[in-house]
Amino acid sequence: MASRSQPTRARSSEAKLAREAAILDAAARLATAHGIRTVTLTDIAAEVGMHKSGMLRYFETREEIFLRLAAAGWVEWSRAVRERLVDAAPDAGDARAARSADGVRHEPRSRAVAGLLAESLVARPLFCDLLAHTPMNLERNVSLESVRCFKVTALAEVAAVGEALCRVAALSPAQAGNVVATATSMAGALWQMAAPGTELRRLYETDPDLGHAVVDVVPRLTDILGAMLRGYRAGGEAE
Amino acid sequence: MASRSQPTRARSSEAKLAREAAILDAAARLATAHGIRTVTLTDIAAEVGMHKSGMLRYFETREEIFLRLAAAGWVEWSRAVRERLVDAAPDAGDARAARSADGVRHEPRSRAVAGLLAESLVARPLFCDLLAHTPMNLERNVSLESVRCFKVTALAEVAAVGEALCRVAALSPAQAGNVVATATSMAGALWQMAAPGTELRRLYETDPDLGHAVVDVVPRLTDILGAMLRGYRAGGEAE
Repeated sequence: MASRSQPTRARSSEAKLAREAAILDAAARLATAHGIRTVTLTDIAAEVGMHKSGMLRYFETREEIFLRLAAAGWVEWSRAVRERLVDAAPDAGDARAARSADGVRHEPRSRAVAGLLAESLVARPLFCDLLAHTPMNLERNVSLESVRCFKVTALAEVAAVGEALCRVAALSPAQAGNVVATATSMAGALWQMAAPGTELRRLYETDPDLGHAVVDVVPRLTDILGAMLRGYRAGGEAE
Repeated sequence: MASRSQPTRARSSEAKLAREAAILDAAARLATAHGIRTVTLTDIAAEVGMHKSGMLRYFETREEIFLRLAAAGWVEWSRAVRERLVDAAPDAGDARAARSADGVRHEPRSRAVAGLLAESLVARPLFCDLLAHTPMNLERNVSLESVRCFKVTALAEVAAVGEALCRVAALSPAQAGNVVATATSMAGALWQMAAPGTELRRLYETDPDLGHAVVDVVPRLTDILGAMLRGYRAGGEAE
C-alpha cells in the first residue's frame, strides 16, 4: 500500500505546489497592477481561474497569500541587495576609496550605500507595498503559525542584509539592524505617501497647499539613510 | 427673521461642537484601551450613548473620527515637543555645551535631542497607534476634503517641529523635515511591532526563534534618530 500511494502523494504534492505558485503569481500580478489594498480573494480566484471555495484549500485568507508574497519579497530583495553591496565593497567598487593611498581600508561612501539601499527598494514597488501593509494589515487575520513563518523568514533576511552592511559600512550588528529596519519601514511609508496613481497623490499634486509635500522617494530615502550611516560612522557620542 | 435665527444657530452650533468633542473623547478612550484597529463606529456610539444613525450626522466613518484624533495628536505632540526642544536649547539646557569655553555656540548633543523626540512620541501611545494607521487605513474611506484638512494640519506641525529642530540641532529645513518624518513614521512602525498585549507581542515573547526581535522602542528610536542627527551635523559628503 505504502509503495503504491507514495507516487500519488508525490504527484499530488507537486500539483499542490504548482497550484500554490499559480495563486501567488496571480495575486502578485493583481497587486502590482492595482495595489494590495484593492485585491480581494475573489479577484485572485478569478485571475487564477479557480473557484474561491477551491482556493480556500490552499490559503485561508487574502492576508495569508500576501504574507507569503512578503516573505518571498524579503528573500528576493535580500539576495539582490547583498550582491550589490558586495560589488560596492571598498576593494571592488569605490573608485575614490581605491585611489586613496594612506593604507587605511576606506569604506565606500555612506551616500553610495544609502543610494543602493534606497534604489533597490524603490525598484520593487510590490515589495514596498507589502512592507507598508505587513505590520498593519497582513499580520492580522492569519494563523499565528503563518505569522511565525513569515517573521522567521523576514528576520533571517534582515540579519543577512545587516551582515553584508557590517562588512561594507563598518557598523555594529545592532546598528546594521537599525539601518535595515529604517530602510524597509521608511520605504514602505514613503512609497505609500507617493504611490503614483493614487487619489492621495492626485490630491497632493493638485492642491496648492500640499504640492510641496509630494515625495520623491529615492532621493529622500537616500538622504535619510546616508545621514544614519555617516552618523554611525562618526560615532563619537556615548552610545 | 435673521436676528431671531442667529442665537438659535449659535446655540445649535455650540451644541454640535460639544457633541463632536464627546464623540472624539469616547473614540480616544476606546482606542487607548483596546487599540484603534478593534474600535468600530458602533462601539463609539455605545460609549458616547448615541444611536449610530445620530452619530453619522457628525462623522461619516470611523476613519473620519480617527483622522480628526490624529490631527489633534499632531497639534498636541508638536506643542509639547517644541517646548521641550526650547528647554534643550544650548543656552538654556545642555550643561556640557554651557561649560565649553571656546566661544563657539555648541548644539545640545544629538543623542539628547534624539532621546527627547523618541520619549515624547512613546509617551503618547494613542498618537503612535494613529501615526501607524494614518497612511495605511485612516486616509482612505473618508472624503478628500477630510484628508486635505488632516494633511494641512499635519504638514504645518511637521514644519513647526522642523523649525524648532533647525534652531537646536543645526539642520537645514529639508534635513529637519526628514528627521521629523523618520521619527514619526518609525515611532508608528516600532510601536506597532512592540505594542504590549498584542498577540504579536506574545508570539515574540514566547517563541525561542523570535524572542530577540522584541523591540524596546525608546532606546531603538533614540539610536536611529541620534545617528541621523550626528550624520547631518557631520555633513562632509556631497549632498
